[in-house]
Amino acid sequence: MTKIMTIKHIGILTSGGDAPGMNAAIRAIVIAAHHYKIAVFGFYAGFNGLIDDESVLLSDKAVAHIIHKGGTILKSARCPTMKTSLGIAQATSTLMKEKIDGLIVIGGDGSFTGLLALQKQWSGQVIGIPGTIDNDIDGSDFSIGFSTAINTAIEAIDKIRDTAEAFERIFIVELMGRNSGHITYNVGIACAAEQIISFENFATKNQTASEQEKLLALAKEIKLAQANRHASYIIVLAENLWQGGATALAQQLQTLANIDCTACILGHIQRGGSPVAKDRILATKLGVGAVQAMIAGKSNIMIAEQNNAVAHVALQTAIMHQQGVSNNLVQAQENILALTAQRL
Amino acid sequence: MTKIMTIKHIGILTSGGDAPGMNAAIRAIVIAAHHYKIAVFGFYAGFNGLIDDESVLLSDKAVAHIIHKGGTILKSARCPTMKTSLGIAQATSTLMKEKIDGLIVIGGDGSFTGLLALQKQWSGQVIGIPGTIDNDIDGSDFSIGFSTAINTAIEAIDKIRDTAEAFERIFIVELMGRNSGHITYNVGIACAAEQIISFENFATKNQTASEQEKLLALAKEIKLAQANRHASYIIVLAENLWQGGATALAQQLQTLANIDCTACILGHIQRGGSPVAKDRILATKLGVGAVQAMIAGKSNIMIAEQNNAVAHVALQTAIMHQQGVSNNLVQAQENILALTAQRL
Amino acid sequence: MTKIMTIKHIGILTSGGDAPGMNAAIRAIVIAAHHYKIAVFGFYAGFNGLIDDESVLLSDKAVAHIIHKGGTILKSARCPTMKTSLGIAQATSTLMKEKIDGLIVIGGDGSFTGLLALQKQWSGQVIGIPGTIDNDIDGSDFSIGFSTAINTAIEAIDKIRDTAEAFERIFIVELMGRNSGHITYNVGIACAAEQIISFENFATKNQTASEQEKLLALAKEIKLAQANRHASYIIVLAENLWQGGATALAQQLQTLANIDCTACILGHIQRGGSPVAKDRILATKLGVGAVQAMIAGKSNIMIAEQNNAVAHVALQTAIMHQQGVSNNLVQAQENILALTAQRL
Amino acid sequence: MTKIMTIKHIGILTSGGDAPGMNAAIRAIVIAAHHYKIAVFGFYAGFNGLIDDESVLLSDKAVAHIIHKGGTILKSARCPTMKTSLGIAQATSTLMKEKIDGLIVIGGDGSFTGLLALQKQWSGQVIGIPGTIDNDIDGSDFSIGFSTAINTAIEAIDKIRDTAEAFERIFIVELMGRNSGHITYNVGIACAAEQIISFENFATKNQTASEQEKLLALAKEIKLAQANRHASYIIVLAENLWQGGATALAQQLQTLANIDCTACILGHIQRGGSPVAKDRILATKLGVGAVQAMIAGKSNIMIAEQNNAVAHVALQTAIMHQQGVSNNLVQAQENILALTAQRL
Repeated sequence: MTKIMTIKHIGILTSGGDAPGMNAAIRAIVIAAHHYKIAVFGFYAGFNGLIDDESVLLSDKAVAHIIHKGGTILKSARCPTMKTSLGIAQATSTLMKEKIDGLIVIGGDGSFTGLLALQKQWSGQVIGIPGTIDNDIDGSDFSIGFSTAINTAIEAIDKIRDTAEAFERIFIVELMGRNSGHITYNVGIACAAEQIISFENFATKNQTASEQEKLLALAKEIKLAQANRHASYIIVLAENLWQGGATALAQQLQTLANIDCTACILGHIQRGGSPVAKDRILATKLGVGAVQAMIAGKSNIMIAEQNNAVAHVALQTAIMHQQGVSNNLVQAQENILALTAQRL
Repeated sequence: MTKIMTIKHIGILTSGGDAPGMNAAIRAIVIAAHHYKIAVFGFYAGFNGLIDDESVLLSDKAVAHIIHKGGTILKSARCPTMKTSLGIAQATSTLMKEKIDGLIVIGGDGSFTGLLALQKQWSGQVIGIPGTIDNDIDGSDFSIGFSTAINTAIEAIDKIRDTAEAFERIFIVELMGRNSGHITYNVGIACAAEQIISFENFATKNQTASEQEKLLALAKEIKLAQANRHASYIIVLAENLWQGGATALAQQLQTLANIDCTACILGHIQRGGSPVAKDRILATKLGVGAVQAMIAGKSNIMIAEQNNAVAHVALQTAIMHQQGVSNNLVQAQENILALTAQRL
Repeated sequence: MTKIMTIKHIGILTSGGDAPGMNAAIRAIVIAAHHYKIAVFGFYAGFNGLIDDESVLLSDKAVAHIIHKGGTILKSARCPTMKTSLGIAQATSTLMKEKIDGLIVIGGDGSFTGLLALQKQWSGQVIGIPGTIDNDIDGSDFSIGFSTAINTAIEAIDKIRDTAEAFERIFIVELMGRNSGHITYNVGIACAAEQIISFENFATKNQTASEQEKLLALAKEIKLAQANRHASYIIVLAENLWQGGATALAQQLQTLANIDCTACILGHIQRGGSPVAKDRILATKLGVGAVQAMIAGKSNIMIAEQNNAVAHVALQTAIMHQQGVSNNLVQAQENILALTAQRL
Repeated sequence: MTKIMTIKHIGILTSGGDAPGMNAAIRAIVIAAHHYKIAVFGFYAGFNGLIDDESVLLSDKAVAHIIHKGGTILKSARCPTMKTSLGIAQATSTLMKEKIDGLIVIGGDGSFTGLLALQKQWSGQVIGIPGTIDNDIDGSDFSIGFSTAINTAIEAIDKIRDTAEAFERIFIVELMGRNSGHITYNVGIACAAEQIISFENFATKNQTASEQEKLLALAKEIKLAQANRHASYIIVLAENLWQGGATALAQQLQTLANIDCTACILGHIQRGGSPVAKDRILATKLGVGAVQAMIAGKSNIMIAEQNNAVAHVALQTAIMHQQGVSNNLVQAQENILALTAQRL
């Protein structure tokens, strides 16, 4: 209760890979904070802004009409210095100098790890908001940017499908996601991919198989499917799963099995663009939730979405990477995939 | 168990207003059914196809590459005859003649009411799938088409915002939703509307007020907001809430309060278009779920999504219209709105 | 030649209805001017900014990353005062006070008329750039914003087509264009409309016919088309052509001929949005061309595009409204339409 | 004149890389032909359909609602056999067997070369329609698909810009175009690229320079630009210009000049997607023009667009590759680029 009185200045920053909806979260935080007469300082370029004390006092006007913009007006960056005790000391020094009562960080697991380290040295409250297209944060059904990224990817693959159909051709489309298959899985289902190669299925199913055995099994499936029909065939491939990525896989299919296919790496288009409604609403809910949690004296938590409602999750939990593609979704999607794999 | 053996022919139809993702559901049903060696007959133009016995045997090829298409390949229509006992008798006759074991209907509450009536006369299994942009089906967090509709609407309003900003002008944008505010609420938040006029807030807040009192209260809010800033001002308005809609409201604001604003009725663009990823995945999950429920001998249920998982809901429950904008979302969104109402 | 030396300050403003690409033109003017060491002052809200002396010195930074933004960073507005001698005197006074050597106005015929009036009182150079979605400027094949507007409209009608097909329904879609049919014609062809009702064909063909005769002729065509097929039917209608617009036309078709159709007014979504490539490139070419013409001592001209090249056209010519839908395009499009009218 | 009587059967095919708008051209040809009571046979998979005699009689219904679809309903393919005398003999045999009076091919220079070879052995009329995203056909201002491809590319780069800005990062985006810079130039201007590396400027400017000298010159420019500002920097690169493409260029800039940048290869998304208005209208005009030219007894020509009007160009001329980026556009664009190169 007494805590509520003490919050006068909040700091915010965006860190790690940018994600569509980060600006919507910044806007929600600033508007909600102003509602409670709290000033908001935006630190630039992730934790670098803390270390170098580069910030801006965010006005209502500064966040007007940014809800629909990709990227982040506060810029983002990796910050290796934040992994050193010197970096944490500098960040702490800035926060004390600027009289920041609480810090909100929008980012992924790396950013939350930085927050946890900081919180050991600094007495202010720390709150995380999941902002990453990879959706690899435990404890939140969705992270900001994920829904936009999968929509960008399916729009791209819908276009690739046109050419694939015109030429009855095989395409391997490599998707982002770091070490998780959320994007690959969801995109694969939504664009009716003939084959999904992701951590959750491919790696597990073929655990004991050699690279070459996996390749031959894949080649066999492709040949079987193509024998029965004249049509396009699209494989979605999670990045970091196959050594050398889509380009290597395409070459190996050619060499080993005489299968002719085209590799496409969607790349950074998945990171940008105007956020879809889901990401704008999610970011608004989590942003407002973060300010309300700050006022309620909470710290060391991530503001999450669980079953469409706002929830609080320990930062420590958020970075555990045990959640996989999702609670019950993995199996459901595997079923769907099994059923749809033999479709025309 | 014995039931499983008996399913040889499934009938499907799309009914009521079309919704993006209906084709994805049709595709999922056909593929899943074929997986279990079940034939699928598609009846045309909603219940009319049942009454007139107009159907097509759906092959894998017929549903290839339709996952991304708006509308419905089975066409849709209202069917007043289905509300008569003659209509139900004719539909029953067709289902028996064609040896249909179970019927899956993708549609809204009107369609489910037809299904309930049919089920009293016909011994086959009946299963509903929620397909309506309005999202006004109880027991499912989302209905097919809703997510696409709100994205179409926010893209349109993002464009209107450009002109609104250039002219520092007030726009009233009328949105679909029949008698529910799901679309209006979500779009309002996602496009950072300055004002949301929907059943859940406006009607309730001003219950005892006369039309004119409501109008004057609104005018006062607008004038207050505009006094403090030079900027655009966008009001989203639920259809069927204000007598005469956006056009009437604009005229009345002009007449009573000398407020100059432009009415836009988004209309039918909200119904079409390529479904977003959420609707494609939802439709795929529910379509597969419907076939699996059919095989398991289930009847009189709607296949729903609850907390990202597939759930079964009594058809009777689905049409009750007691769910409102959503379980805990209404209050959450009201809070957000209160906080963001005074923003630039 | 000596003139080249004298240009130190250019003023620019955007006037009339906003059009996608106006920002791209502002950017091109500023960058080109800076290349020649000329300062650029942006006046706000059209001619109002001249009258009220509200302007901003435009830096490189101010125009960075605006090429893809709809609306206009300088805002726009109608300006009745500019039609009075007092208004022109005030504008002249501002231009002299601010030592403006030349004024570039991005807008339509109303804006150019203001420029012509101004030029009679003021000794500086005046140059126009055609910026209006209506494309109703004589002497330029394209005006900035037109290409984006027709693309926005066809994307909207593609969505409406989904519902029209699902319900085998007739839609009347009303399009912008003031008193010219450029938008209606091009959109009609590009979305394969079954019927185009525009100034260039409908008004001319039926010159002596009464409103009711025209209506009956239209009803006959619709009924004939619908008799032969079960399909959607989309009519595109130019605004300001039919008394009461699409809504009235739909009601009258219902009353007189028992034809059931749905009216859609696309409205202001046609004005906004990120400009398509054509408008960005056109705006860049015309913006650079305007600065180069200014340096060359030209005045009283519009910078136009003719046959893909930059051209100079007398402002007096630009506002004559004699060009119609286009040089040879009218007949070509009529032919196409005649051929495609009876298609499925 | 007498010729008009003889045309009863037209054959059409799409050949080479698919391009958005090919379906719109097919539709226009079929509708126009039916207007003149001519039957249209669509041959599948480019010239392969001629050689293997695989075709379909195209009905009005077959081409309804395809104007907005990417790809080609007739499929496309390369056809090495068509370069042999055996292939030409087989194609001729099919055309005679099927009583085809004239053949229309939608494709690029390779397709037209096939047509020229065919015409030496076969007495029917041959007409080409320029359909390639590369726009590298002499004698036509635009080829079908080009406008859509550049719009797809700028939408992708707008998204990349978001991340580039958030990270103040350098991106090298590789664009399609085979050996011409039309796409690269237009996209570069439209997305405000900081650097355009294309055949028309880079190759020419640095003719005598070694690869390494070119690289160092480029590195110097980048470093100069980045020294003065903190911002994103986007280079668009024509495919087939730099040995190893964007990936190699990025690595070399890193190795030689310690410049950290990210390579993106847009790839096949540029080929598909719903055609923009320009491509739909162009395809409709050229398709109708082809049928009318066929009826008028013309042969050995390409139906082109020159100054917005339909024109006839000798097939021999169309494949000469002397036209470069365009008539007067090259210099105009170079000027613009020079002016905008130093912008923020």
